[in-house]
Amino acid sequence: MKDHPKTMNGAESVVRSLHEAGVDVCFGNPGTSEMQFVDALDRTKLMRCVLGLFEGVVTGAADGYARMAGKPAVTLLHLAPGFANAAANLHNARKARVPMVNLVGDHALRHQQYDAPLSADVEGACAPFSDWVRSGRHAGSFANDAMEALRVATGKPGRIATLIAPADIGWDDGGVMADALPPNGPVAFDPDALHGAVAALEHGARTVMIVGNGVLEDVGALALLQGIADRTGAKILAPTSNRRMERGQGRFPVAKIPYPINDAIARLAGFDHAILIEAMPPVAFFAYPGKPSLLLPETCETVTLAGLDGNGPEAIAALADRMGAQAAKAPAMIQPTPPAAGAITMDNIAAALANSLPEDAIVVDEGVSWGGALYAAGNAARPNSWLSLTGGSIGIGIPLSAGAAIARPDRPVITLQADGSAMYTIQGLWTQAREGSNVTTIILANRAYQILKGELHNVGAQPGEDALSMLNLDRPTLDFVALAKGMGVPGRRVEDVRDLMQAIEDAATEPGPFLIEALL
Amino acid sequence: MKDHPKTMNGAESVVRSLHEAGVDVCFGNPGTSEMQFVDALDRTKLMRCVLGLFEGVVTGAADGYARMAGKPAVTLLHLAPGFANAAANLHNARKARVPMVNLVGDHALRHQQYDAPLSADVEGACAPFSDWVRSGRHAGSFANDAMEALRVATGKPGRIATLIAPADIGWDDGGVMADALPPNGPVAFDPDALHGAVAALEHGARTVMIVGNGVLEDVGALALLQGIADRTGAKILAPTSNRRMERGQGRFPVAKIPYPINDAIARLAGFDHAILIEAMPPVAFFAYPGKPSLLLPETCETVTLAGLDGNGPEAIAALADRMGAQAAKAPAMIQPTPPAAGAITMDNIAAALANSLPEDAIVVDEGVSWGGALYAAGNAARPNSWLSLTGGSIGIGIPLSAGAAIARPDRPVITLQADGSAMYTIQGLWTQAREGSNVTTIILANRAYQILKGELHNVGAQPGEDALSMLNLDRPTLDFVALAKGMGVPGRRVEDVRDLMQAIEDAATEPGPFLIEALL
Repeated sequence: MKDHPKTMNGAESVVRSLHEAGVDVCFGNPGTSEMQFVDALDRTKLMRCVLGLFEGVVTGAADGYARMAGKPAVTLLHLAPGFANAAANLHNARKARVPMVNLVGDHALRHQQYDAPLSADVEGACAPFSDWVRSGRHAGSFANDAMEALRVATGKPGRIATLIAPADIGWDDGGVMADALPPNGPVAFDPDALHGAVAALEHGARTVMIVGNGVLEDVGALALLQGIADRTGAKILAPTSNRRMERGQGRFPVAKIPYPINDAIARLAGFDHAILIEAMPPVAFFAYPGKPSLLLPETCETVTLAGLDGNGPEAIAALADRMGAQAAKAPAMIQPTPPAAGAITMDNIAAALANSLPEDAIVVDEGVSWGGALYAAGNAARPNSWLSLTGGSIGIGIPLSAGAAIARPDRPVITLQADGSAMYTIQGLWTQAREGSNVTTIILANRAYQILKGELHNVGAQPGEDALSMLNLDRPTLDFVALAKGMGVPGRRVEDVRDLMQAIEDAATEPGPFLIEALL
Repeated sequence: MKDHPKTMNGAESVVRSLHEAGVDVCFGNPGTSEMQFVDALDRTKLMRCVLGLFEGVVTGAADGYARMAGKPAVTLLHLAPGFANAAANLHNARKARVPMVNLVGDHALRHQQYDAPLSADVEGACAPFSDWVRSGRHAGSFANDAMEALRVATGKPGRIATLIAPADIGWDDGGVMADALPPNGPVAFDPDALHGAVAALEHGARTVMIVGNGVLEDVGALALLQGIADRTGAKILAPTSNRRMERGQGRFPVAKIPYPINDAIARLAGFDHAILIEAMPPVAFFAYPGKPSLLLPETCETVTLAGLDGNGPEAIAALADRMGAQAAKAPAMIQPTPPAAGAITMDNIAAALANSLPEDAIVVDEGVSWGGALYAAGNAARPNSWLSLTGGSIGIGIPLSAGAAIARPDRPVITLQADGSAMYTIQGLWTQAREGSNVTTIILANRAYQILKGELHNVGAQPGEDALSMLNLDRPTLDFVALAKGMGVPGRRVEDVRDLMQAIEDAATEPGPFLIEALL
């Protein structure tokens, strides 16, 4: 153990112990009840401190950081309302099985009995958006609490661990350093499941392998999976939304289960066997009148080779071994011809992006109603990491990009951002500017909650004037170039697909963030 | 009962029943699980539908509406993450004892068993920020649930009632209209408490009457209170943060308990008797090392003449009757001399505002570190309604103004808005533009979380570089005029106090919203 001060307060013991266990970035939006952490971070200078102007930026950034760094950041949040502001992107991070440790300040223990203005049920607020919640009780055990939070967060799969920090135990002397605790490793796969998977593969093209999380991040596992598919005729699909997919030229392309309910059902209709590898049985985003909730056919037999707590690449290696399959070479992806000049449409945007996404880009996809059209770009482009909205709670793109850029300052980040969704956490542009992050935000401006118009149709309704007033964003139109300027991010508006491609290339060559408002 | 369709679905029965009970404004940020309400609102055309681009705008606006309309609006929110985004301003509304009914969409009942992307514990998420939560179970009883929510919300004091709406019971036919239920009236005051208050008033200037909520909204009650004070020598104070205060020339000025802990303790130090009227014993915003949580001296004897559930004006009338006191005339407030040209400072801003606030303004005060300096303006200005941040969760000002303007389109709204706080719910400017609201937002741009620097000092720390990186907003500076332009709101930047006054006057004469960025 390194040299640490003989005496320290509770907050300092937490900061120092987390750092010694490998946590070195803190995303924060602190308030009065977190001042002892601000002070401890300031005095120790052990962590990079990144400020968000809104808590949803903080947790979205911590999610993006974890997806690209493969380890958790710590967040600093302010009591129940601050946690609530953070919760939507915690929900997304939780569904992504991302590791994260939240420090949520609370009133001093003696103050909690009173109805002070900011008093609320902090534990109750944290519980629905955390996998683990604990409230610190003493300065001396506070670092231990933090190590337990880190242990939970970094197990397999990743979890959201929230440690509530009453202000006084942060101030109090008597902080004691604590050692890192070993996280839960992945659950070993079940030999019976392997047997079941082998049997399922006998059905060839009537079998689907649904692979998620760690598999999609592992280029080698995907190549082996392709080898199994080549040998057996089985199909491969990924869930609709994924934490991170390693994609692009030279990598094995994986199709996703479509978002629209009818497309999803049609896509899965032909399968009578399914093998799940770090994936769960696919479920519809929403229930619709007369449609099933579970997307696989009722008659489909499903075997879980590796659960979310398993090791998908290891399971795939064992399966390949049993099938005598070798790693396959990804098919040469033919980059589509760049589109001719003209309006930006669902038909030309994938070709435009496939030709203009920079090498090694981190692509953040919050395209929402344009998501299906955008997805193809990731296969044909140069190698890239593709990050999606995982929990359905819009407003993740700009923060996720900010955090990914902190984790990987050596790589360009491209955000494919629907306009309506952008407005939930638009403040994240300021953090990108402050940190000088190499992020290019492409606003896909259709000036509506376009996807909801489809959803209204799905429940059998035709929108009239009042409905459209809740779904259209055109009165007034949002000027994203002005919004970006307001937060120190330069920008440009484009309406032509060739101008879009040029703007992406220009933005990649300049340091710091840039915003492109693409009128659709 | 009016004519209603013979058959309707659950959502329509809720919309129609709420409307018949007097609810005619819906603030919403709906998603897929609320499409049946969007459809019902569209077909019935009974409510004014106001869209927010972020849920914190929706609830902040519903709060501002309720404060000025004296009745609740209904909100439309999307599952657990949407509710969470709404929660910080619900927290503020709850502390203001404002009536509000939330409709929170949830997955269809049959879909709730699955781990769909947006699945979460909706009831658990709602509970910490609501006074009442229920989940609808059948189309036929859904309107009854809504009427129970409305009953709870509109009792004394106002409450936050949250009705969770599974999507299918909104679609299902069999909706049945329900009648309004009588809310809880105010609790009658206790004769013993009246006796105690009379006895306390014998101590003259050593007695403080702390008056909140309904008292501060009632010019007549304040005049009677002044009469009691004139007769007995007792002092009058309001809580630090208040829902609505009727202020300005010709009205009785009420001082507030200061926010800074030392000032608050000093202000209350001389009292040995306290009479609470629609107020609770004052509590420090935060606990500080070596400072008490309760602000009245330990030896102070406290009598609650009317609790938050009581009728303060009625209690004051009874007390005045016992003391033989008459309504007093408010002292003539001398409008301060307008400041000379020069920088905008804490010393000249009150005089500037007192001279430039328009007649009958609704003033929304989220000045935070400038709050103390701003407050004096409200007494010397023309008559105004003064609305404050009640729950300490910053990001209320812009939404509160948007809602107040919907309730009272005949009155100008002036928002005194700290810059750091503005960024939590900046999206509310768009709603102001969309609704053509007569709101002038004055951004008080000190380019820091200034109040936190004081709080860091209060816990005994000196900020170094890393601490300042979490507290300063100057890298890059925010350009609020550009941000406003991005959302369709014209703006102007001022640095001189005379220019500020001129800008306020100019803004008041033009229709629609305006933003003034005041560099401090």
